[in-house]
Amino acid sequence: MDPRIKNIRSKLIEENLDGFLLSLPANISYLTKYPSRDSYYLVSPKNNFYFTDSRYTEEAKNALRGSASIIKTNGSVFKMIADVSLKSHLKRIAFEERHLPFAEYQEIKRGLGRKAKLIPTHSLTEKLRCLKETQEVAKIKKAINITSKALDFAKKVISPGKKEIEVVAELERYIRYLGASNSAFDIIVASGPNSSFPHHISGNRKIKSGEPVLIDIGVDFLGYKSDLTRVFFLGRISSSVKEVYDIVCSAQKEAIRRIKPQEIIDKIDKAARQYISSKGYGGFFGHNLGHGIGLEIHEEPQISSKNSGLLNTSMVFTIEPGIYLPNKFGIRIEDVVLVTEKGCEVLSASIHK
Amino acid sequence: MDPRIKNIRSKLIEENLDGFLLSLPANISYLTKYPSRDSYYLVSPKNNFYFTDSRYTEEAKNALRGSASIIKTNGSVFKMIADVSLKSHLKRIAFEERHLPFAEYQEIKRGLGRKAKLIPTHSLTEKLRCLKETQEVAKIKKAINITSKALDFAKKVISPGKKEIEVVAELERYIRYLGASNSAFDIIVASGPNSSFPHHISGNRKIKSGEPVLIDIGVDFLGYKSDLTRVFFLGRISSSVKEVYDIVCSAQKEAIRRIKPQEIIDKIDKAARQYISSKGYGGFFGHNLGHGIGLEIHEEPQISSKNSGLLNTSMVFTIEPGIYLPNKFGIRIEDVVLVTEKGCEVLSASIHK
Repeated sequence: MDPRIKNIRSKLIEENLDGFLLSLPANISYLTKYPSRDSYYLVSPKNNFYFTDSRYTEEAKNALRGSASIIKTNGSVFKMIADVSLKSHLKRIAFEERHLPFAEYQEIKRGLGRKAKLIPTHSLTEKLRCLKETQEVAKIKKAINITSKALDFAKKVISPGKKEIEVVAELERYIRYLGASNSAFDIIVASGPNSSFPHHISGNRKIKSGEPVLIDIGVDFLGYKSDLTRVFFLGRISSSVKEVYDIVCSAQKEAIRRIKPQEIIDKIDKAARQYISSKGYGGFFGHNLGHGIGLEIHEEPQISSKNSGLLNTSMVFTIEPGIYLPNKFGIRIEDVVLVTEKGCEVLSASIHK
Repeated sequence: MDPRIKNIRSKLIEENLDGFLLSLPANISYLTKYPSRDSYYLVSPKNNFYFTDSRYTEEAKNALRGSASIIKTNGSVFKMIADVSLKSHLKRIAFEERHLPFAEYQEIKRGLGRKAKLIPTHSLTEKLRCLKETQEVAKIKKAINITSKALDFAKKVISPGKKEIEVVAELERYIRYLGASNSAFDIIVASGPNSSFPHHISGNRKIKSGEPVLIDIGVDFLGYKSDLTRVFFLGRISSSVKEVYDIVCSAQKEAIRRIKPQEIIDKIDKAARQYISSKGYGGFFGHNLGHGIGLEIHEEPQISSKNSGLLNTSMVFTIEPGIYLPNKFGIRIEDVVLVTEKGCEVLSASIHK
């Protein structure tokens, strides 16, 4: 049996559950090792059931041969899920409370009647996904490698007069020739004052000489994501921009040098945050320091000042401090780290800052 | 007051509701006329409240000036939603039952205690979005126009030896130079036998001479989407492929000529489906005939054999019959239509079939 399914089944036994309905595509993809879309997955002690419609049944049959029964949905998938659960004599069926909409919960519950119970759970699969296997790290490394080349390419593409969206266009093209299937999110090219919006939507603004250009880019390689940010400069860097840039770089170093197994996560966030505050920019770093990446672009662990959890070997996440000065400019530097036995490895270390 | 907000507030009065919590980004974008991400929107008879985190507050303040109070979330957004609802003395608060996860529902409910009630609703906003305003149709037309040019460009790009993903790369680049902000979904380039999977993931397969290449592409123009499919041929078309192609074209015509206000939707689907069946391919057209498009790539109305609703002037949707012969090839032809007073206008009519 696949170790991932084995792990989930052990979790179910621990929690006194005899079924687990998954609805988050990334969690289903993790357990099936197949890029799942528009599907539900029911794991039970003996059998697994994969519910999808006619668009995907042929593909799913090929991919999941032997590991799950493929159920072609027709009419209400929720009624079908309830029926299959009852036929399999499941009594206590876990579901993903953060990913199942209220209406779907109600429909399945109605279908089960009094014969079985839906039990809310969260992070059952996410907790497993947090700790990356060697082959998962290899895919993330490949995604980072493609992104690194794309950032080198970006340096050649950006020039005064070029629109932000045109830079995005060139990057979207380039990553696919390097083996990515897609970008991992809308690539951000934020020039001049636009860089002060952490999640700027790239548009028709033309890049000007002498201003910072922030590029936040990630790609998808066989389902695994990268996420990196660099800021480029066209011409001379003003001393005020240079000062902020150096502070962000140092804040990132302060965080990274504290990363090791068993460290409390909030300490990592606070290390960067306090450094930025000590330099007088405390009010200008609003978001979390980082987030896990893998099958999703944002996954556990959140590297936040409110996360009192512990770091563990094999976690992979971003470290991305930023300083955003409204109507002026913003600087964010984002790298990806892997927690190792002795500390951490910066997987994107080779990309120039 | 904006007519969209006015419409929603009238709906609330009709349904004896005094608040409406939106969580679907497209619905929030519709009511705010701002590309909303990571937000919740609470509409009440007197005020609107837009909940988002520090990454978006500056941008949202600029965009929503005067129409909503921006609430910067910090900690649990659900607790904050409950608090604002109670402070505004809302008693019966509608929520989107298909878009609010179970856990979020529970958290808001807990925050409200016994002082207010959450009422499940669905399609309140979707029903309004179904009927497109002139300015919305104009944006969809522009998205179709860009897609049309991209399909012309695709003809030049596809050639024997070119990988599917490389064709995607060129299209992803091209659409942005034409003014699209993004593709509306992962562009499908499915060559040869891959075309028999309706939702093929474009990959490294090299296009060969003499086979069909199916391209399903849509773009995003100022939030509005297009969605079109054409099949190209490299070299001579075999008679079996030609036969299926002609059947799909005729099935589409059978459906389109029946489109008019007050027609029952299932009849449109059945017209195409029965035509395909009559030609002996009944088992090879598994998906619905079409779907609404607008701010989302799939929205109401579903053009399905199970939808007994009526067509109405100003609806915009796809008509996309297909025949998929496993391990051989698939043909799908997809156009976008607008229901007019007299019948319909095929918005993508100028694109060669």
